[in-house]
Amino acid sequence: MNETIINRLAQMRALMSEGGVQAVIVPQADPHQGEYLAPHWQVRRWLSGFTGSAGDLVVTADKAALWTDSRYFIQAAAQLEGTGIELMKDGLAETPSIANFLCSELTAGNKAALDGMLFTEASVEALRSCLDAAGIGLVTDFDVIDRIWLDRPALPDGKIFVHDIKYAGCEAAKKIADILADAEKKDAQGVFVAMLDEVAWILNIRCNDVNHTPVATAFLYLSAGGSVLFIDSAKLTPETQEYLASQGVSTREYADVKSFLASLPQQRVLVDAAHTAKELLDILGDKAVDGGTSAASVMKSVKNGVQLEGVRAAMLRDGVAMVRSLIEIENRMAKGVKTTELDIAEILRRHRSAGELYFDESFGTIAGYGPHGAIVHYEADELSSSTLEPHGLLLIDSGAQYLDGTTDITRTIALGEPTAQERADFTLVMKGHIAIATAVFPAGTRGAQLDALARQFLWKHGLSYLHGTGHGVGHFLSVHEGPHSIRLNNVEAPLRPGSITSNEPGVYRENIHGIRCENLVLCRHEMTTDFGDFLGFETLTLCPFDRSLFELSMMTEEEIAWVDSYHAGVAQMLMPALATKEERAWLEEHTKPLKD
Amino acid sequence: MNETIINRLAQMRALMSEGGVQAVIVPQADPHQGEYLAPHWQVRRWLSGFTGSAGDLVVTADKAALWTDSRYFIQAAAQLEGTGIELMKDGLAETPSIANFLCSELTAGNKAALDGMLFTEASVEALRSCLDAAGIGLVTDFDVIDRIWLDRPALPDGKIFVHDIKYAGCEAAKKIADILADAEKKDAQGVFVAMLDEVAWILNIRCNDVNHTPVATAFLYLSAGGSVLFIDSAKLTPETQEYLASQGVSTREYADVKSFLASLPQQRVLVDAAHTAKELLDILGDKAVDGGTSAASVMKSVKNGVQLEGVRAAMLRDGVAMVRSLIEIENRMAKGVKTTELDIAEILRRHRSAGELYFDESFGTIAGYGPHGAIVHYEADELSSSTLEPHGLLLIDSGAQYLDGTTDITRTIALGEPTAQERADFTLVMKGHIAIATAVFPAGTRGAQLDALARQFLWKHGLSYLHGTGHGVGHFLSVHEGPHSIRLNNVEAPLRPGSITSNEPGVYRENIHGIRCENLVLCRHEMTTDFGDFLGFETLTLCPFDRSLFELSMMTEEEIAWVDSYHAGVAQMLMPALATKEERAWLEEHTKPLKD
Repeated sequence: MNETIINRLAQMRALMSEGGVQAVIVPQADPHQGEYLAPHWQVRRWLSGFTGSAGDLVVTADKAALWTDSRYFIQAAAQLEGTGIELMKDGLAETPSIANFLCSELTAGNKAALDGMLFTEASVEALRSCLDAAGIGLVTDFDVIDRIWLDRPALPDGKIFVHDIKYAGCEAAKKIADILADAEKKDAQGVFVAMLDEVAWILNIRCNDVNHTPVATAFLYLSAGGSVLFIDSAKLTPETQEYLASQGVSTREYADVKSFLASLPQQRVLVDAAHTAKELLDILGDKAVDGGTSAASVMKSVKNGVQLEGVRAAMLRDGVAMVRSLIEIENRMAKGVKTTELDIAEILRRHRSAGELYFDESFGTIAGYGPHGAIVHYEADELSSSTLEPHGLLLIDSGAQYLDGTTDITRTIALGEPTAQERADFTLVMKGHIAIATAVFPAGTRGAQLDALARQFLWKHGLSYLHGTGHGVGHFLSVHEGPHSIRLNNVEAPLRPGSITSNEPGVYRENIHGIRCENLVLCRHEMTTDFGDFLGFETLTLCPFDRSLFELSMMTEEEIAWVDSYHAGVAQMLMPALATKEERAWLEEHTKPLKD
Repeated sequence: MNETIINRLAQMRALMSEGGVQAVIVPQADPHQGEYLAPHWQVRRWLSGFTGSAGDLVVTADKAALWTDSRYFIQAAAQLEGTGIELMKDGLAETPSIANFLCSELTAGNKAALDGMLFTEASVEALRSCLDAAGIGLVTDFDVIDRIWLDRPALPDGKIFVHDIKYAGCEAAKKIADILADAEKKDAQGVFVAMLDEVAWILNIRCNDVNHTPVATAFLYLSAGGSVLFIDSAKLTPETQEYLASQGVSTREYADVKSFLASLPQQRVLVDAAHTAKELLDILGDKAVDGGTSAASVMKSVKNGVQLEGVRAAMLRDGVAMVRSLIEIENRMAKGVKTTELDIAEILRRHRSAGELYFDESFGTIAGYGPHGAIVHYEADELSSSTLEPHGLLLIDSGAQYLDGTTDITRTIALGEPTAQERADFTLVMKGHIAIATAVFPAGTRGAQLDALARQFLWKHGLSYLHGTGHGVGHFLSVHEGPHSIRLNNVEAPLRPGSITSNEPGVYRENIHGIRCENLVLCRHEMTTDFGDFLGFETLTLCPFDRSLFELSMMTEEEIAWVDSYHAGVAQMLMPALATKEERAWLEEHTKPLKD
C-alpha cells in the first residue's frame, strides 16, 4: 500500500465532494502548453506518484486511473503499485478514452471538473461534447490543489537574463513591431502570448525555470500603446527591468494576467487558441480573435543571419564534444573499463560543458544499449542503466543549449563486429536520412509531404518507426519547436527557408536493438526555375556516422558519395578544432571514404 | 458586341432588381456536386457564353465577371469578348476572390444572392462571413433562371438500366444494409445521398444523363423502414421499378425531394455535408447529422472480387484498343497520311468501341501534340486541332467506360527521333511513376504522404507539375472518384486495399511539350510484419511505354528492371488477344527489354 498517494487522493476526494463534483481530471500540463514543466506544475506527479513526462490522472469518488503511452507502461505500472490507481494504456484498442471512462463511471446529472488554466479550449470542448451526450456536466475552474499540496513548490524564482543581441540578431522592439504589424493586418490591436518560448524569443530574455529549455515563466501582452510582461517581480533585477523598458515593455506580477485581460477595453486581441489556456480565452471572451499559428511562432522558426552564424559555431563545438565522447567511449571499451548508459550521459555532458557558451543539455541524454535502444524515449536511471559489452548497438541521442544555438544529434554505433541485420537496418535508416538530406522541393511544401522519403526504404522491408522524421529546433530555446515538422500527420505549416529541422529516421526491433541517425538540417533556397522557387536542406550537424555499419551493397553510388562528402566536410570543419594528434587520427580514420 | 449574352444579363439584372438583390453568383454546379453537368444545369454557360468546365459568374447591376482557372484563360477571353463580362484569372495574386469583388462592388445594406441548391453549406458560410464583415446580406434561395432561360433543357429523360450483378458483384440490398448498419453506429436512422455516383453504385443502376459518367439524376434516401429514390418517373420502366422494389427501394418524383425531407419525422439523418446542397441541409435542419465522408463513398472505393475480375478483363480490351490505335497512328505517320489531334481521338474511340462491353469514353480524349501537350486539360476542337509532324511528342490521355470497368491511360510518344530534353524529361516522369508503382507503405497511409515519391526526381531538376499524382477511379462509374487520392493537398482518406488510383506524374514545358505517364494501380496487401500491415500497388493498365524515350543513364538497374518486367507482363497478357501478325510483331518490338 502506498499510504502517501492514497492519502493525497482521499484529500482530493474530500475537496471534490465539497465542490459538488464527482470526478476530476489532472493533466500533465502548465498554463503555457509547455513540453517541460516547472516543479510548481507537477501536480499530476504529486497526486499520483507517477513521474513520467506524459500522462493524465482521473479521480472519481471510488476509482482513480492514469492514462499514459507505451513509453511508460512499465514505469507507470511499477510506480502506481499500491496506490489504487489503475493504469490505462493509451493507444491500445481496449483502452477507453478519458471521456468514455467518465461516461461509464458517472451518471447523468453528475459533474466532472478540471482546471481551465491547464487545458486548451479545443480539448475542453471535445470532452464536453462527449459528456453532454451522457448528461454529465463539466466544471472548468476547479483549481484546488494548493489546499492539499501544502509544500507545493513556488513558481520558479530564478532571475531572467538578456539574450545578447550578438546572439539573437534582432532587437525585441523590432520583433514586437513586426508582430503588431501582422496583427494590424488581422484587424487586431493587441496580441496575447502564452507560450514560454515565444515570450523568450520575442523579448530576447532567457531563464532556467525548467530543465533543458531556457525559458522564464511569464505571459506577454503586446500592443502599440505599450506591452506588458506578466512575471514574478522576484525574477527581475533593475537591469533587466531597464532592458525591458528600453524595448517598450513594462512588467506586472505573473498572477495579474487574469485581471489585466478582464479589464482590457473592448478591442480585438489576437491569440493562438491552440496554445492558450481555455480560462484565459474565456476571460478575453469576444475580444479574443483566434489567428491560428502565431506570427511569433512562424518568425521564430526562421533564423536570421546572426543566429545561423551562431548555430554553425555551436555545431563546431558540439561536434568536437561528440568526437571526444566517442573516442572516450571507444577507449574505455578497448581497455575493458566498465561503462554504463549513465556513464555515457556523463561523458557527453562533461565534454560539452567544457566548450564555450555552454548553458545546459537540450534534453536528457538518451543512451540506449542493445534492447534499450529500441525504447524510443529511453532515459537510463540507476535501476535500468545497462553496462556496455563489446557487441551490439549503442544509440546516443543528446544535445546542448549553447548561448549561440541549440543542438540535437543521434548516433548509433557498433560496439563490436556488427551483424548482417545490424548493418542492413542501419543502412535502410541511413538511406532515408540521405533522402531527406538531399531532398529538393517547391517552396510551400509541408513536412508531411517529405516524410515518406525517409521511410520508403524501411517500408519496402516491412519496417517502420512511429515517431516523426523531424521536428523544428529553436535557437537557444526549445529543442522541439513548431510550427513546422516532418512527420506522418499533416501539419499545414510549410518548411520555410531559414528554419532548422531534425532529420532522424530510425528503426526499433523490440528486445534487440534501436537505430536512429539524426542531424539537424537548415532549410535553404536551392534554385528558381520556370516552375518556381525550390528549397532544400543544408546539413548543420558535424559528426561522423559509424562507417562499420554501412552495407554498401544496399546503397546507390549517389548515397555512398553523399556519406563520403558529408564525412569530408566533417573532417574539414572539425580537424582544426581538435587538440590532440589522437583526436585528429581518430577523425581521419572515421571520415575515410566508405569504400576505403 | 455579343447581343445574345448582353440581353441575357439584362434579363437577369431585371430579376435581381425585382428580387431586391444587387448581385447574383452563378456557379458551374448542379445539386449533386457532380463533376460533369447535364445540359439542364449548364446555367453559367448559358448566361455567360463561356463553355469551359470550370468557372463561376458574378453579375451586379453594372458589372459582370467570370472566375476561371489557367486552363481556360485563352478560351474564356475569346468567348467573353463583346459580352461585357470581365475575365477574372483564378490563381493569380492580383485576382480578387468573389467575396472581395462583392465587397468592393456592393455597399453595406446591399444583398448578394445565390441558389442554395448549387452550393455546399461550407462554401456559403465562407462567403457569408466575408460579406457579413462588410454589412452585405446573402440570399440563398435565389433560383430564377427558369424565368429567363425559356428553352432550358429539361432534366435528362434517358431510361435507367440495371448494372448486372455479374459486373457489380454485390446486391443493392446488401449495400443498403451495410450503409444503414454504419449509420446505426452513428445513431442515425436515415441516410441521405446526393452524389450521383453514390446513388448509382448503391442501387446498381446506371444511365446516360451526363457525358462520360453513366449516372442517373436522382437523390436517394435510405432507411430501415424503406428507401426512396427521387427520380423523374419518365426515366423508369416497369422492369427497373420492379428491380428497385426487389431491393427495398420505392420511387418518387425527383422534384419531391424537398417536401419529403421537410416532412420527415424527427430523427437523425446522416449526410455528407461537403457533398450535399446547402438548401437540402437547411430543410433537414437539426435532423441532419454530418458524418463526414460517406460510408457509400468509402465502400464504393473498395472494389470487390467480381469488380476486379471485370476491371482486369476491361484492361485487356483497353490494352488491345490502345495497341491498335498506336499502330494505326504509327502507320499513318510512316505513310505521311495527314493526322490531326482530333483524328487521334477518333482512332481511339473506334478501336475501343469495337471491343466488348464498351459503353462510352470515360472522358473527352486529350490528344496534345507538341506545345498542346503542355496544356494540362487540353481538348482539341476544330479550331485548335494540330496536324502531327514527324518530330516532337504526342500526349494521349484517354479512357473508356466498359460495363465491367472504367479505364484511364496516358501515353506520351515520340513522333520522331527524340531530343535529349524529351528523353530526360520523360525519364524523370517515369522514375516518379515507377516509385509509385513499387511503393510499399503501412496500412493507413494517405495519398498525400506518397505524392512526393512521384515528384522527387523532377523536383531535383527544378521541375514540377501542378495536378495530382493520382485520383480514385470508379467501376463503370466516375473516372474521378473519392475519397482517396495521391496529391499535394492533404486528404484524410487512406489508401485502402481494393481501391483503384491513377498513377500519372507529368511535366509540362510551356510552348514546348507535355509529358504524362499514366497507369491505373490497384492497392493491395503486401505483407504483415512485426510492424503491422503493409500495402502496395499492382499495376492494372496494359500498354507499352515508348521505349525510345527512356534515357537509361538516368535510371537505376531496379527502375530498368521494373520497366522490362512491366513490358513482359503486357506482352504476355495482350499477345493472345491480338488478331494479326503485324499487331503481334509490333507488341513484341515495343515490349523488348530496354537494353535490347
